[in-house]
Amino acid sequence: MVNANARLVGLDWGSTSLRAFLLGPGGVLIEERSAKQGSTAMNGSAAAYESTLAQIAGDWLAAAPALPVLACGMVGSKHGWREAPYAACPAGEQQLAGGFVRVTAAGREIAIVPGMSCRTVGSAPDVMRGEETQIVGALAQRPDLAGACTFVLPGTHSKWAHVRENQVIDFATYMTGELFAVLRGHSVLGRLMIDQDEPDDDSFAAGVRAAAERTALAHQLFAVRTLGLFDELKPEALPDYLSGLLIGHEITAGLRERYIAGGEEQPLVLVGEPKLCALYESALHIFGSGVEASFPNTAPAGLWRLALEAGIVTGTEESGT
Amino acid sequence: MVNANARLVGLDWGSTSLRAFLLGPGGVLIEERSAKQGSTAMNGSAAAYESTLAQIAGDWLAAAPALPVLACGMVGSKHGWREAPYAACPAGEQQLAGGFVRVTAAGREIAIVPGMSCRTVGSAPDVMRGEETQIVGALAQRPDLAGACTFVLPGTHSKWAHVRENQVIDFATYMTGELFAVLRGHSVLGRLMIDQDEPDDDSFAAGVRAAAERTALAHQLFAVRTLGLFDELKPEALPDYLSGLLIGHEITAGLRERYIAGGEEQPLVLVGEPKLCALYESALHIFGSGVEASFPNTAPAGLWRLALEAGIVTGTEESGT
Repeated sequence: MVNANARLVGLDWGSTSLRAFLLGPGGVLIEERSAKQGSTAMNGSAAAYESTLAQIAGDWLAAAPALPVLACGMVGSKHGWREAPYAACPAGEQQLAGGFVRVTAAGREIAIVPGMSCRTVGSAPDVMRGEETQIVGALAQRPDLAGACTFVLPGTHSKWAHVRENQVIDFATYMTGELFAVLRGHSVLGRLMIDQDEPDDDSFAAGVRAAAERTALAHQLFAVRTLGLFDELKPEALPDYLSGLLIGHEITAGLRERYIAGGEEQPLVLVGEPKLCALYESALHIFGSGVEASFPNTAPAGLWRLALEAGIVTGTEESGT
Repeated sequence: MVNANARLVGLDWGSTSLRAFLLGPGGVLIEERSAKQGSTAMNGSAAAYESTLAQIAGDWLAAAPALPVLACGMVGSKHGWREAPYAACPAGEQQLAGGFVRVTAAGREIAIVPGMSCRTVGSAPDVMRGEETQIVGALAQRPDLAGACTFVLPGTHSKWAHVRENQVIDFATYMTGELFAVLRGHSVLGRLMIDQDEPDDDSFAAGVRAAAERTALAHQLFAVRTLGLFDELKPEALPDYLSGLLIGHEITAGLRERYIAGGEEQPLVLVGEPKLCALYESALHIFGSGVEASFPNTAPAGLWRLALEAGIVTGTEESGT
């Protein structure tokens, strides 16, 4: 049978999407599927989670009644399938694996990875769900970085996470992607814009360089309007300028906070959608910072690593046939 | 006749609202009216501007065929009634009065005040339309401030303007009010919020103080979510916290750029809606800054002053009866 090698079904169940991974011995990816039924659309209904799981992975599960399932992401939030309380930083694989919660669907137990929280003294709490698994996966693939590095996970709510001795010691969220979306879609800035298929690298870089001046974001955003009004940027170039401005402000702050251990700036590791990672890499280059490694998606590796840590799967077995 | 004293019809015609002022000798306010037909709703149509003017001030105009009309605001923008090119900073009353453009409606000439623009070296251009008239009006009422002061005009697009020797030397726009509106209405931050009638002063102050830490806005915004998630702020308190955070970031930047003359920080002058000015005053207090003067609406005084400067009205006449 095609799935005789299956050892784990991994689920990356975020707010707006679901990805399912069928993993074999050693965590090798056998098959990957995706669906648009994110956790938000489940509306907290266990029945909705259960039927969506059956839709995306029913054949995998039917073929192997003992196949374990491990899920990460917003599925474990307060309004998810079941709340998996945040592991407080500093935290790593052990704290995450020790914090699994479990639900039952069609008689099968499904484990859910907790998110992570942190709080720097005097500041508001910060949280992540899903990114902790990406980080674990990246460190499993590059254990040489686990001593000390800074992760950048760009997206709707970008995360900058500081790792030392295989643990996330703290992290910060930047609402970069969401700011872009609401300003593009709902503010005066969007009115002068025209979308184009190809990104305008020069306008993106101009936005990044403007951000490096470190004046207030709320002021610099208005330039997206005036540069359009004064015909100094074409309507097609304005979205890229806005993107550069927002990403540049995130990087300015992220680099300032970058964890310094032993007097040395730690290597930067990017994890995310490849085009977005390439944008961040080009922006970081403007700030004189290089990237040590860039991963497209380390959720399958992270889920495997956490399943191993929790004893849901084993690392020492002969390959099936 | 009731309007025998009328000397000028002033119009403050912004994007989303129109205010009309009937002014008597010396610029005394005889009557004020407002309408929701802002410049944006006119869609660039001269006929729409003309009929809206007739609706709001037709009786004033019919009673006095020679009564002059002076308008400021977005009515003079590229997509307004007629474009009044920006007066480039440094600029004051003379440059504004010298830059009037004119349209004709029902045989009557209507003058339009230009906006102002500025550009600091290496930066994007900045613009205002309407605020320049508010500034002229405030300085007409407090000529002792015209030597050197910093204006703060809070709103959708807040302006901080530096005045020296009766001229605006430069200014900066902050999209504070619009950021609040789009984040409240269209981002994940709005989802946990509940509006309440009475402002929560403590939560507002907490947001202002957080902004004073000078970390990145895109990061601090996420705290509006986590403080709600962790039940550290009630849903009713979150809008005020967000408002404090945004206003605090504006003030942090504005005070850093505040005009300094002769080694001294210049007095701050607020112009705007009284409740909003009171919020700014309380936030400035947290930063240790006092306010020299606060004006609710100086557009009538500014329009009168500019009409005088342009010779549309005269300052030396006996009062009518």
